[in-house]
Amino acid sequence: MTLKKYLLAPGPVPVPPNVLNAMAAPIIHHRSPDFVELFAEVKEGLQHFYQTEQPVLILGATGTGGMEGSVTNFLSPGDKALVVNGGKFGERWTKICTAYGIQVTEIKVTWGESVDVAQVEAALKADPAIKAVYVQASETSTGTAHDVKAIAALTQGRDTLTVVDAITALGVIDMPMDAWGLDVVVSGSQKGYMLPPGLAFVGVSEKAWGFQRTAKCPRFYFDFAKEKKALEGNQTAYTPAVSLIVGLKEVLKMVREEGLQNLFARHARLAEATREGMRAAGLTLFPTGTPSTAVTAVNAPEGIDGQDIYKTLRTRFGVTAAGGQDHLKGKIFRIAHLGYADTFDTITAVAATEMAIAALGGKVNLGAGVRRAEELLG
Amino acid sequence: MTLKKYLLAPGPVPVPPNVLNAMAAPIIHHRSPDFVELFAEVKEGLQHFYQTEQPVLILGATGTGGMEGSVTNFLSPGDKALVVNGGKFGERWTKICTAYGIQVTEIKVTWGESVDVAQVEAALKADPAIKAVYVQASETSTGTAHDVKAIAALTQGRDTLTVVDAITALGVIDMPMDAWGLDVVVSGSQKGYMLPPGLAFVGVSEKAWGFQRTAKCPRFYFDFAKEKKALEGNQTAYTPAVSLIVGLKEVLKMVREEGLQNLFARHARLAEATREGMRAAGLTLFPTGTPSTAVTAVNAPEGIDGQDIYKTLRTRFGVTAAGGQDHLKGKIFRIAHLGYADTFDTITAVAATEMAIAALGGKVNLGAGVRRAEELLG
Repeated sequence: MTLKKYLLAPGPVPVPPNVLNAMAAPIIHHRSPDFVELFAEVKEGLQHFYQTEQPVLILGATGTGGMEGSVTNFLSPGDKALVVNGGKFGERWTKICTAYGIQVTEIKVTWGESVDVAQVEAALKADPAIKAVYVQASETSTGTAHDVKAIAALTQGRDTLTVVDAITALGVIDMPMDAWGLDVVVSGSQKGYMLPPGLAFVGVSEKAWGFQRTAKCPRFYFDFAKEKKALEGNQTAYTPAVSLIVGLKEVLKMVREEGLQNLFARHARLAEATREGMRAAGLTLFPTGTPSTAVTAVNAPEGIDGQDIYKTLRTRFGVTAAGGQDHLKGKIFRIAHLGYADTFDTITAVAATEMAIAALGGKVNLGAGVRRAEELLG
Repeated sequence: MTLKKYLLAPGPVPVPPNVLNAMAAPIIHHRSPDFVELFAEVKEGLQHFYQTEQPVLILGATGTGGMEGSVTNFLSPGDKALVVNGGKFGERWTKICTAYGIQVTEIKVTWGESVDVAQVEAALKADPAIKAVYVQASETSTGTAHDVKAIAALTQGRDTLTVVDAITALGVIDMPMDAWGLDVVVSGSQKGYMLPPGLAFVGVSEKAWGFQRTAKCPRFYFDFAKEKKALEGNQTAYTPAVSLIVGLKEVLKMVREEGLQNLFARHARLAEATREGMRAAGLTLFPTGTPSTAVTAVNAPEGIDGQDIYKTLRTRFGVTAAGGQDHLKGKIFRIAHLGYADTFDTITAVAATEMAIAALGGKVNLGAGVRRAEELLG
């Protein structure tokens, strides 16, 4: 038999078989009443998933498209933005802002640390002209979380938006958009949604819509006002990725069946078991800040290249995890517990890691990590 | 039994069952060697489909995203563009250009007419500063084609690009990108590709890459240089819509098996049979210019609302066609012969139209249109 495959990367994640089946049904037309009905259900399900009363926009793009729109729809060239840059995706906020002529003040956070909220507070105090704070809820490149709740609290009552990249956080950690006062929340289909890549989602607060009306950055495909208007008629501004929307209906139904709090608890349980399992196997974790509930970044042990671990997992054991990015390449590897993931995915992750390190001649307590994970997941 | 459905709209089009099946396979990771191998095959297949030696970019977006990128990557704010506006999609070129500060000269073409190439020639002569001509190969809103070959011939040897929206034309009419000297050609997955919506494609000539290097319109998600570089490593710049790429491999294989010339001949045959069938049934066609090979626009007969025909086709006969857009709403209806379409789709289209008009109390020669179509398709 060819090697059986296990997809444990921080996106794309496996798609549940019932969802794959639903998406394989014959294409329906996006202007047909069937689609409109489906879309109305999806719209409501998205608000539930986001924990918001606000409309959640659906864009035909990856999360990066949603990030770009979350710059161009709320700011004008020359405006000031504060970017929390603690990894590859924090850096992306800066790149997008710069491409559109936004003046960026960066809080550089050492990779693996969570931003010090006092620093954000000080930066906001120092410059009342800052119109938006851009931050990740979960920085996928480092497996580290930032405290977006505390940051949103700082922008309440001032003319500043909190814009959150929640691409690997939504549906993973409990981050109620309305209750926390998050203004703009971006997510993507291939993560907590358990869908193939191809859709981005953006929740937008009333306060942010106020910014949208005067923002002058050029935009066309990612025009949120046009999408909001289309949404009111149960459509998207441009032809929606029909099969993904069909899948979306299925996953949002699964989310309701599981219940949001159970879903967050499952992710927290798997994340903890992964971290504890890795430690019990004799490994150390990369983050020094709050670890992400979506993905665990593990240090490659002394004398072993992190890319070799990633490759051995894949080629010898059929497990697709992720390596390190940029300067972390070779230093860490990352294993996700995100979306369509449960107990034995985590057991597999820990066991395969033990076996890969042993295969590479590393020191590892074979079975010790799995034992610890079993204790926590039993 | 619930009504059996026939999707005969100008996109999305039906997806062949073998392709739906392939897309329902478990998700593979986009950085895995499996994907890289698949992508390499797809890349070559796209060049064959486009009839070009140039790389064809793959964007996670609808065709409109590809259109936006085809403005922002080649022009700078203040640059001059000539837009052929003969329908809803011609108008879109103007809207995108305007959003990015491009100075637009429009050739307004009466809906249903093909642009007079002499007018394009005169406009180019009158203003040597025009850097690009934006045009549709097939204007879907009117079912009319423009002569993009002749337009491209006008921009050869001058510092001007021919940028073609081929969203409903690629894989339908023979428009060899390199041989005709088309500089930028945009297409989309839910049309001639026979795939669900979600991918845009852009072929870019060497001349256009020269423009790309100096163009100053802001852009991030649709950055063609970044996509070109990613393509060289068999990747996309951002997470690709994996399941659609898997489907793409299948459809490109089908295209090779059929052969490009057979594929164009099939579309031409279905288009002619549709037109002739409609005429034989006593109807008249909307276009006064060259009719599109992808979609036929038919005038609603005297006393019958075009939207009623569209609705009767759908609700009573299960046939999803399209109505008219903007000022043509109620005046026309449109039936496609695009992508995964063959003889009995056209027979169905003509028969259902005859039956719908009869059901609405209109004058129609029941069976006469089908008879003519049978003669042409036998």
